[in-house]
Formats: sequence, structure tokens, C-alpha cells
Amino acid sequence: MDENFIHQLYLDHQRTAELPSPRLVEDWLNRLLQLLFPEYSEEHFASERVFAREFETNALKFLTILDVIRDKLERPASEVQTEFYAGIPAMRQSLMEDATAILNGDPAAKSTTEVIRTYPGFFTLAVFRVANSLCRLGVPLIPRVLTEHAHMRTGIDIHPGATIGRRFCIDHGTGIVIGETVEIGDDVKIYQGVTLGALSVDKSLARTKRHPTIEDRVVIYAGATILGGDTVIGEDSVIGGNTWITKSVAAGSKVYYRE
Amino acid sequence: MDENFIHQLYLDHQRTAELPSPRLVEDWLNRLLQLLFPEYSEEHFASERVFAREFETNALKFLTILDVIRDKLERPASEVQTEFYAGIPAMRQSLMEDATAILNGDPAAKSTTEVIRTYPGFFTLAVFRVANSLCRLGVPLIPRVLTEHAHMRTGIDIHPGATIGRRFCIDHGTGIVIGETVEIGDDVKIYQGVTLGALSVDKSLARTKRHPTIEDRVVIYAGATILGGDTVIGEDSVIGGNTWITKSVAAGSKVYYRE
Amino acid sequence: MDENFIHQLYLDHQRTAELPSPRLVEDWLNRLLQLLFPEYSEEHFASERVFAREFETNALKFLTILDVIRDKLERPASEVQTEFYAGIPAMRQSLMEDATAILNGDPAAKSTTEVIRTYPGFFTLAVFRVANSLCRLGVPLIPRVLTEHAHMRTGIDIHPGATIGRRFCIDHGTGIVIGETVEIGDDVKIYQGVTLGALSVDKSLARTKRHPTIEDRVVIYAGATILGGDTVIGEDSVIGGNTWITKSVAAGSKVYYRE
Amino acid sequence: MDENFIHQLYLDHQRTAELPSPRLVEDWLNRLLQLLFPEYSEEHFASERVFAREFETNALKFLTILDVIRDKLERPASEVQTEFYAGIPAMRQSLMEDATAILNGDPAAKSTTEVIRTYPGFFTLAVFRVANSLCRLGVPLIPRVLTEHAHMRTGIDIHPGATIGRRFCIDHGTGIVIGETVEIGDDVKIYQGVTLGALSVDKSLARTKRHPTIEDRVVIYAGATILGGDTVIGEDSVIGGNTWITKSVAAGSKVYYRE
Amino acid sequence: MDENFIHQLYLDHQRTAELPSPRLVEDWLNRLLQLLFPEYSEEHFASERVFAREFETNALKFLTILDVIRDKLERPASEVQTEFYAGIPAMRQSLMEDATAILNGDPAAKSTTEVIRTYPGFFTLAVFRVANSLCRLGVPLIPRVLTEHAHMRTGIDIHPGATIGRRFCIDHGTGIVIGETVEIGDDVKIYQGVTLGALSVDKSLARTKRHPTIEDRVVIYAGATILGGDTVIGEDSVIGGNTWITKSVAAGSKVYYRE
Amino acid sequence: MDENFIHQLYLDHQRTAELPSPRLVEDWLNRLLQLLFPEYSEEHFASERVFAREFETNALKFLTILDVIRDKLERPASEVQTEFYAGIPAMRQSLMEDATAILNGDPAAKSTTEVIRTYPGFFTLAVFRVANSLCRLGVPLIPRVLTEHAHMRTGIDIHPGATIGRRFCIDHGTGIVIGETVEIGDDVKIYQGVTLGALSVDKSLARTKRHPTIEDRVVIYAGATILGGDTVIGEDSVIGGNTWITKSVAAGSKVYYRE
Repeated sequence: MDENFIHQLYLDHQRTAELPSPRLVEDWLNRLLQLLFPEYSEEHFASERVFAREFETNALKFLTILDVIRDKLERPASEVQTEFYAGIPAMRQSLMEDATAILNGDPAAKSTTEVIRTYPGFFTLAVFRVANSLCRLGVPLIPRVLTEHAHMRTGIDIHPGATIGRRFCIDHGTGIVIGETVEIGDDVKIYQGVTLGALSVDKSLARTKRHPTIEDRVVIYAGATILGGDTVIGEDSVIGGNTWITKSVAAGSKVYYRE
Repeated sequence: MDENFIHQLYLDHQRTAELPSPRLVEDWLNRLLQLLFPEYSEEHFASERVFAREFETNALKFLTILDVIRDKLERPASEVQTEFYAGIPAMRQSLMEDATAILNGDPAAKSTTEVIRTYPGFFTLAVFRVANSLCRLGVPLIPRVLTEHAHMRTGIDIHPGATIGRRFCIDHGTGIVIGETVEIGDDVKIYQGVTLGALSVDKSLARTKRHPTIEDRVVIYAGATILGGDTVIGEDSVIGGNTWITKSVAAGSKVYYRE
Repeated sequence: MDENFIHQLYLDHQRTAELPSPRLVEDWLNRLLQLLFPEYSEEHFASERVFAREFETNALKFLTILDVIRDKLERPASEVQTEFYAGIPAMRQSLMEDATAILNGDPAAKSTTEVIRTYPGFFTLAVFRVANSLCRLGVPLIPRVLTEHAHMRTGIDIHPGATIGRRFCIDHGTGIVIGETVEIGDDVKIYQGVTLGALSVDKSLARTKRHPTIEDRVVIYAGATILGGDTVIGEDSVIGGNTWITKSVAAGSKVYYRE
Repeated sequence: MDENFIHQLYLDHQRTAELPSPRLVEDWLNRLLQLLFPEYSEEHFASERVFAREFETNALKFLTILDVIRDKLERPASEVQTEFYAGIPAMRQSLMEDATAILNGDPAAKSTTEVIRTYPGFFTLAVFRVANSLCRLGVPLIPRVLTEHAHMRTGIDIHPGATIGRRFCIDHGTGIVIGETVEIGDDVKIYQGVTLGALSVDKSLARTKRHPTIEDRVVIYAGATILGGDTVIGEDSVIGGNTWITKSVAAGSKVYYRE
Repeated sequence: MDENFIHQLYLDHQRTAELPSPRLVEDWLNRLLQLLFPEYSEEHFASERVFAREFETNALKFLTILDVIRDKLERPASEVQTEFYAGIPAMRQSLMEDATAILNGDPAAKSTTEVIRTYPGFFTLAVFRVANSLCRLGVPLIPRVLTEHAHMRTGIDIHPGATIGRRFCIDHGTGIVIGETVEIGDDVKIYQGVTLGALSVDKSLARTKRHPTIEDRVVIYAGATILGGDTVIGEDSVIGGNTWITKSVAAGSKVYYRE
Repeated sequence: MDENFIHQLYLDHQRTAELPSPRLVEDWLNRLLQLLFPEYSEEHFASERVFAREFETNALKFLTILDVIRDKLERPASEVQTEFYAGIPAMRQSLMEDATAILNGDPAAKSTTEVIRTYPGFFTLAVFRVANSLCRLGVPLIPRVLTEHAHMRTGIDIHPGATIGRRFCIDHGTGIVIGETVEIGDDVKIYQGVTLGALSVDKSLARTKRHPTIEDRVVIYAGATILGGDTVIGEDSVIGGNTWITKSVAAGSKVYYRE
């Protein structure tokens, strides 16, 4: 190959700012999920103190990750860390409610153990709630690394900046896309292939609300596409599969695909 | 973090019943597939006896997995094991027919070697036939762990409880969802994004037929959605892409999306 | 299990022609991508010469892969290798343009670093451009192994034989299928769930153009399906989401899903 | 390099008879030791049945190893396997006595747990007793692979064909050499750097007794060398460090190095 | 195998008190040595803060190890940890002096880099100084696990309880044994195969001084054996190789093996 | 820990010149030995060309190692590489003779396969002949890294600078030390614990001959120590075990330890 090409590429390698190693980030995430959910863990902890120490180690690894990108943080890394871990009990509570909602919503599900251990929807939601929590604390890049890790494993793409309420239920899930400025209420349920996206991707809209709002208790069936920042799906609506919606829908509506 | 939270979580870890380790289950599955399909294997076996021994070891690992959940089995683990392995020659025969069907159905495919080694549809089907076989023997949880392993890798979600006939052909595949009570005949072909699902997910329907029946020689194109336990797609029908079907369709029908 | 079954299977293992080990192929690919994009690399190279040597080692590994299948090559392995590596600078240039196009096209993207490190669309495109380059040099099987590796990770299925122009932009991506004889112009953008496929999969059509042509600056929204070898989407057209298109569309058209 | 050299070497690789992979042999050994001694294990077994299954799997792996070299076995592999595993309870009993003897003989030792987990002398003895047991069953090569594995880790070289009585105590151990036809009684203790070797290494002596006999309750201090097949160290003797002995020593003798 | 044997063994596994996993202990040790000596490290740290964080993580891992055996500690784990890490700068200083002493004492050594990276004597000393430091803080078992880890790799067996002065120089090293109550002054140098041991191993002597005292600037050549708690080698003495010494030697003596 | 300490240590890490990663060096060595000796290999090569390519890859890895230390080389790295690989056929021939000599010299050895696969003496000699070859080509540090790798595994410490003739036979081996300026003739045999060392380790002697000369057909028994640059053991001599020799010995002598 051209020597000059190699030379330029080498300079590129030298210049590229240090990023937290993907392996480090994934190890931290997986360990955190194993600590939070026994269903993910293969380990037997010798005592409560040993268990607690693992949490501390996890928190310290998180600080190491933050240190690599500390120039891009708005606040001291240790402040970010403290707040993130303080929010974990509430986050786990929320995830347990999600698991129960999935169990109740899927006739094929036999137990929350099965949901937590085998449902890609739950896994993605767990990663999202972690990533979202970091987003809210102003951490750049890492949240996206986390949600893309889940996206690669499950085919479900939730932007870490989205807003998602309680008892969110994802069924099957492959092909779901939830954009950055989506707002989802409580007790919403969505199926595979649903897109909650933008009507336009003009770069100048980067900081505006470009994705829809889904109110409480809405159900959205497989393959439905709902677009636009002004589009609001009113509470208790049912959006049929393969529908294409770019305007708001009143509360209690039923929108079906005309066969 | 809150000490009480850590304490409760630790108790949770103590209480959670032992599950077979995911690594163990995946090792068993991958080894089985490597033994059944040389295309998956990286190994050179020294003799037929060594090869046969690997099968026995595989069978014993399976027994170890069953032992962990033996309280949840309806029959003695060893009986389950014997029947499962007795069914393997027929299962492999069936998979070889699937591979041939995929080869014949895809102009881009050059050989069954290519199909077995690189087609995610074939891989998912292989995992499904293993999982389904376990399902029929009353093994809980493991079948789901297996199909979700394939789902994570290929984006194709086939419930282990589904009924699928011979020479089943999946093309591309990402986004396919096949529900628990689906019944599929012989020589059926489906494309990416097809959903064979339920109309309603009322938990009380858990033990009823909630998903459609697809008769022999039906072809279902990309993105079609077919729902409901009473929905029957009659033999030799062609279901066009992006269609939405909730009622039965007579044999020999052609249902297209109206452009 | 039946002894005869084991015997036949063993013979099968003996007979199966050697294929390059998947691990070897993936190692080669990942190393190549790490060398080409610092964002993928976790390593610090001691000097430019060490870096250059890594490229040579990569090229030699490639030759080892080619050697395994040399009976199926049309030209000497070393000639294939030389041409492939000679084309790498241009290929990387093209991928940098793709990254910029993705950055410009997605309001949520913050930098090319983020695009290269976290966007599955970019990763799949990078693998495609490598695989396509091998395809054009007459290398069998390996290109498909590469694109299926990407397909498994991202849910995006681009056939290595497709023709894709410059500054191609994939947004989200899960569920995208791009067939073998697709031709895509420059500055095209497509979203998740888009299928560019064949109308018929008659095996006798294996060597004909069966997939559509997408001209310059076309945008295709989520879930659209465009089929057929004679179907041409004229330049500057916009194809709405969830549409189903089997006939050509004039330049500058806007095709929407009728709500 | 010379092409002819490569060619000859390649033929050599083709010709070399299959040997059990070192990794396979070591995995089998380590697993066996982990099952026999909880101090070596990092695992928590879910139930007694799971534990028992692990033993069966271990036994099957052993059969796979034997299968590779079955042309060199004097008896059917399965017969060898059955006898070997039948002898394990007695072998473990013997090793527990060894551990107690080491504990009693070393003022620095605090518990048998410490002995089993950290003493290289105990580890080597455990490997020896396994290898010796195979030797007696006529298994070639593998016993030597096992003892060399221990030799590499601990610097203690016990030929698998040696005869060693009960409650054998090795202190420190590095540099100990115990030859093929050594016979050691009960309650013997030896220190680092002790050699129990041959006076002559004439290849024609391969099947004769070439190494010394050590009777019950003998103690041999660091660096002593005792050589020859006719040399007998009578019971209750003490052999001082750095001594050089090629003739028999009466029972109850004390042989010291003259300072 | 006998069912009763399996049953008893299983109970044994259940009963055996949790010990820190060997892998955990070795990871902690290796990481610590990598942080203390760049020559052992393969890593490039992104910033001083990232580097400092790695130290904190290391300290936390240490606490996890201590937690497993906290019932056997004389003091709170965190107190032990704090003191151990507070002593590290002095310990490293001491090890740098050891490295310089080895460099100065070996004509074949070219640099301290070579000494630290390749000399087993230095490695063992580094592990000893860590283990000894833990011993002095009353930590049981772990120090022995550490020194046996070094013993297995280098064949040098230094009891963690020994007392070793500054600028200690080990040349070659295999077969060296240094007992629990040895006391070594400053600037001492010893060669391979040297034993500093006990005259008697009566278990009742467990808490008495049983091993020799080596005063400042003594040199002990290969294969020398020095035994007994009352044996003092006076300062500036030279002990020839293969000698056997059980009585004290006046300062400035030269003891040679009579050829 | 003290912040200043961390700061200084971090600077140390920044300053330390890049060294070839130990893992890289060991991978290269192990691969080379696997290619040269089928007994070390676990692999089945698909064709002679694939095999030849592995040699080329090995040679290229070697160049990468040399590149890291190229400032310390006396000649261009590629010249060193070319000469080293050109010398490999002769080096392997020499090692095969060593293996035969070990087989002939040990009544317990059954085949060269057993010798190559399990004898630590052969392994160390193989590593020595590689390291020595690099030494003669002026490569610094790496030869020592290689021989210490063997030393750690086998307890045999041969300085890479030593001169060793043909058909060299090491029996058992733990504790052998062979110094930098040792010269050994053909058909020499040595046992465990033999030291061929220096009388004085005055650093000023670094470039003089400080270690003994052993002429053809000499046998040296376990624990013998032979010291000094002027000491010559005349051909056909036998040096008894545990002897201590600092003066030359005429050809045909028999030197025994006086019991």
C-alpha cells in the first residue's frame, strides 16, 4: 500500500483523542446489571460485605470511564458518579415494574425470571434506563455506546435521550426505533418494528423536539410508524400495526390499517 | 448507595433459584450444532470413536443442564435426554431439507455449504428445531433461552412452542416474529419482517391458540402481518409484502398490498 | 443414538472441504477495521514502522484465508491480495465520506467519532465496502461470511454483490435488506426496515438483474419496500415510509403512504 | 526459507500421529482435582446430582483422551476408565493422609486447607497419584504428560511409574527428582533438591530396577542424592542434606554430611 | 463410582469455607505490580487521573479479598487496607534498590529494565515484599497464596514471614528456600539452590525461631545449606557453594567446600 | 496513597521506553515451535501453502517485535529477520539430534515424540537455540525474555549467550544454571541441579570469559558445580554429582564426591 497513506493513517491514530475502551464500558455495564439482577449473575457472593464491595468496585470503574472523557463533562466526575449511584435504587424499582408489565402483557411469559433472563425487550430497557440516567447527568458519548451495545444485541434502538414512563412494555422488539426527543407516558406497550421517529432530519433541528409524544396507556402494534415532534398520540389510544401516522390522534382513538 | 438497598438486593441474590448458566447452555448448543453440521465445526476429529465420544459428552452436558431444573421437569431427566437424542437423526434430516429449500429458493445462494455456514435463517431454524424438540419433551425455560440466543444473533424471533413443517424457508429474516401457537405446513417460505402474531394479548388466553395457521406451500413476502388464532392462510396462497391480515384466506389466494 | 447415524455424520465431517475458520476471517476483518479507523482500536502503536508492519501482517493473514479456498479463485491469491490492498486508500476515503454524510444527516449525531464508534449503519457499510471489494476480485464465500457477520451484529443485510455509490447514509438500520443486484447512486439515504428486493425468486434468474436501481439523492423512509430488477427510482425522489413499490418512479417524485 | 524444508516439515505435520491435545488433558486433570478437592474449586454446585453429573462428564472426557491413543492401549478404553474411576475413592483417601502428613510435618503450615490450596508438594503428589494410577492400568504417554505438567508448575519431577507409600511428605520440593523404579515406603519425608536416581543410564537397563528403595519412616534432607537400583535406605534412617549415597544403609542409620 | 463417596464429597464441597478465588488474588497482585513497574505493564494510561483511579480500584479489589476472610483478620479490613497502601511507596523504593543491587551484582545484566522485566529473582522478591507486608498486618493465608504463586513461576520459595533487609540480591534463583523465621540483613546476596532452613521440624516449634540469621553483606553461593535457629552467619562472611552449615560463623569468615 | 508518589509513578510510566509486549513475544515463540514440531501443534493445516503462509506470518510478527526495539539493533531489522529464518532448517536439524540424544540417554524415554512433547529439557533447549541464534545476530533483550520464559516453565536457566554443541542432553533439568560465557562441546550430558557458573561476579568482568568450558562427551551428574572462566573439563570426563570444581580437569578424568 501507498507509504503516504500509511503515514497519514498513523498520524490519525496518534491524533485521535483517547476514548474509554469499549471492553471497559461493557464490563462495567454487564457487572452492574449482574449486581442489580440475580438472573443475570453466574456468581455466588460469599457475604453481604463482599457483595457491597462489588458495588463499590463497579462505582470506581465508572469513575475511571468518566476520567477518560472528563474534559467533556459539565461537572466533576465524582459528582456525576455520586448522583448516578444514588439514583440506582429508584431505577431498579422502575425496571422491576417494567418486568412485571411485560409478564402481564405476554401470554407466553411464565415468570419475571424468564422475562429478565430471556426477553430482549427487558434487557434493552435496562440498558436504556442506565444510559438515560447518564444522559440526564450530562455525560456525552457513553450513553450512546451503551444503547448501541443493546441495539447490536437485540435490534431495538432506543436513543438514550428519550423520555420513557413507568411500566413500559416491549414485546418481541426487533426493529423498534425510538428517537431522541420521544416522550412516552406510563403503561405504554409497543411491538416489533415500531418507529417513533422524525418527519425531517434537517441538521438545524438538532435541538428541537422532532419526535412524537405517546401518552399513558397507548398500545402500538407491530410495524406502526409515528413521526413528527408535534404528533401526540392521546391517552388510551390503540395504534394498529403497519399504520403510518404523522398527525396527532385524540385520546381513546383506535387507528387501524385499512385492509 | 443506600445500605438497605444493598441488603435487600443481597437477599434477592441469595433467594434466586439456581438457573443453568447461560454459558453452559450456549456451549452445549454450539457443540451440538458443530457435531451435526461440519460447516460449523473448526475441528478435525482423530477417529470415529473420538467423534462418537463427543456426542456422548454433549449428551451428558445436557443432563447436567436438566439436573439444575429437575424440579420443574415432568419426567425424569434421563428419560428426557434419551428421547431428545433419539430424535436427533430425524431432526437433522429435516434441517438438511430446510437447507436445500433455502438454496433452491434464493438465486443468490451458491451451495448448501454457504447456506449452513452463512444464512441466519438456517441458523435460527436449527436452533428452533432443537428448542422445539425440548418443548415437546416438557422442558421449561431452556427452549426460550435457546431461541432468544438465536434471536439476539439474527433478529429472528421464533417461539420454541411453534409448529413448523418441512422444508421451511426463511429469506433474509431480520424482524420475523413467529408466535407460540403458530402452525406452519410444509414448503412454506417467508421473508424479513413478517409477523405471525396474536390479535390480543389478554393473559387469560395463555393456553389457547392465539396465532395463525399457515398451510402448505404458502409464500409470505416482506413485512406482512398475519394475526389471530382463527386466521388460516389456505394452501398455495401468496401473501404480498406489507399486508395486514386478520381474517382467513382461501387456498390459492393472492393477497397484495394496494399501491 | 443410532450408530449408523454417527457413522454417516463422521464421514460427512471427513468429506467436508476445508473452509477458512470463521475466527480467522473475523480476526482479519476486525484488525483491518482497527487499523483503518482509530476509533475502533484499543491500541497504542510504538512507531510508524510497527504500525506499517501490522498492515503487512494483516495482508499476510488475508493470503492465508485465500490459500484455503484457492481452488475456487479465478486468479492467483497473491494477485487478488495485491489488488485488494491497493484499493484500500480509496475505500477508506469513501468510508470517511459515508461517515460525514451520516453525521450531516442525523440531528442526533454529535461527531464523526461518534458515528464511527457507535453507528451500526457505518459499521455495516464498512464491512460491505470490504466485502464488495473482494466480490469484484472474484473471491467466493468470504464476502458473504463478512456481510453476514455484520448482519448478525446490526440486523442490516447488504449483499456483498450490491453496487452502492458515495456518501451513502443509513439511519438506525435494523431490518434493512439490500439485494445482490441492487444499484444505488450517490448521496442516497435509507432508514430502518427498508427492503430493496426481488419480485420473484426463481432460481433460473440467478444471473439476471432482479433488484431495483436507486438513483442519486433519493431518500427512502422506514419500512418502504422496493422490488424488481426493472424498477428504477429516479434521482431526487423521496419514497415515503411503509410504501410498497414495484414499478419505476420518475425523477423528483414524492411517493407517500396514503393514510 | 528453503521451500524444500517447508515441504518436508509439512509432510512431517501430516505424518505425526494424533496425540490427545494438551489442553484437553490438562482440562480433564484440573477438573478432576477441583471435584476431588473443594480447595481447588471456584464453583458452587447447585445440587448433588449436578455434582455427580460433573464426575460423569469428567469420566467421559477421560474416555475421549483414551480413544485418541486406543491403538496403544493393552485393554479396551472403557475397561481402563471403569477401573480408574473405581480407584478414585481410595486414591483420594490416600491424598488426604498425605495432606495431614504435610501439615503435621511443617511447623509453618496452619491447616490442611492451606496445604491443599498452596503447597506445591501436595499438588505434585495429587498429580502423581493420578498419573501412577494410569500407569498401572497400562496407559502410555498420558501419565508422563500429567507429571510433566506438575513438574513445570512446581519443579518437582516424579516419574509416574514410581512406587510411593502412604503419608508421603514433600517439604518445599523444588528440584526433587524421583526416578521410574524408585520404591518408597510409608511415612517417608523428603526435602527440596533430593534426587532418587540411577547410577547409570545405559538404555539397555530400561526394564530393570535402576533407582533406590526407601523404606518406611525414612527422612531425607535437602540436596541429598541417593542412586542405584540396589541401594536400600533401611527403615527409620535419616539421610542428611547434601549427602551422596550409592550404597545401601542399614535400618535406623543416620548419615550426615561431614562439615 | 461409589454413590456414597460422591455424597460425602458433595458435603465436603458444601462445608468448605469460602476462600478468595485464586484468580481474584492473582489479578489483584499482577495489576498492582503493573502499576508499580512500567516494565510489567502493557498499557498506556490516558491521564494521571485515570492512572490514580486504577490504584483506587486495585485497593478496592484488595478489600474484596479481605472481606472474604474477614473472620480471620485481627483488625478491620479497611484498616489493614489503609496501612498496606500507605506502605507501598516505601516498599517500591526498597524494590528499586533491590533491582539496582541485582544489576550491579550480575555482569550479564544490562539495565534495570532487563532486571525488572526478565529476572525471576526480582519478581519473587517483589511478590515477597507484598506478601510480607500483608503478613505483618496479620493477614492469614493470602501471603502464602502470593508467595506460592511466585514459587510456582520461579522455583524460588520465600516464606512470607521471613525478614529480609535492603538491597537483597538473588542470582538465578531456582531452588532457593528461605524459611519462615529467617532474618537477613542488608546487602546480602544468594545464588540458586541455597537453603536457609530448620534443623528440626517438630510441630511444637511452630512459634519459635527455627531458621538462621544472615548478617549484612554476606554472600552465599549456589547449593549452600544453612540450618537452625541459633545459626548466625556473621557480617561480611562468604559461604561457599554446596556447603552444609549448622553452626554459627564469625563475622568475616570464608567457609568453603573442601574439594 | 501519597499524591506525589502517584505523580512520580505516572511520569515513570510515561517515560518508560516501549518494549515488545511479552504476550507478543511468547505468541511468536510458541507459534514458531508449533510450526517446527508437530508434537507441539494442535492444528491441522489445510494445505502446504497454508502451512507456508503461517511461516511467513510468523516471520512478519518477528519483524514487528524487532521494529519496537530497532533503535537498539546493530543492523536493519529485515536483515536480522532474513538471517534468522535462513538459519532455521539447520537449527531444527540440531534440535532433532538433541531429541535423539535425550531418547538414547534416558532409559525411561519411549520415543522422540514423548521427548519433544513432554521433556522440559528439550523444550528449554529449543528455546535456547532460538534465543542463541538471536543473540548471535545482535538482538538485545528478546533472547533473555525467551530464555526466562523457558526458565519460568522448566526451572532450567540457560543464558542465551552460551555456546552449546550438538546432541546436548539434559536429564530432568530443574535447577540447571548455564552462564553467559559457558562453552559446551558435542555429546555432553548434564543432570538436574548442575551449575556452570562464575567464580566472581565483579561487574568489571562483564565482557570476559567467566564461565567454564566443557569439552566433548563429558557427563556431569546431579548437583555438580563447575565454576570459573579458566576451568576446562577435558573431553570424555565424568563429573560426579554434588562435586564442586573450580580448576581444570584433564581429559578422561572421573571426579567423584567422596562419601
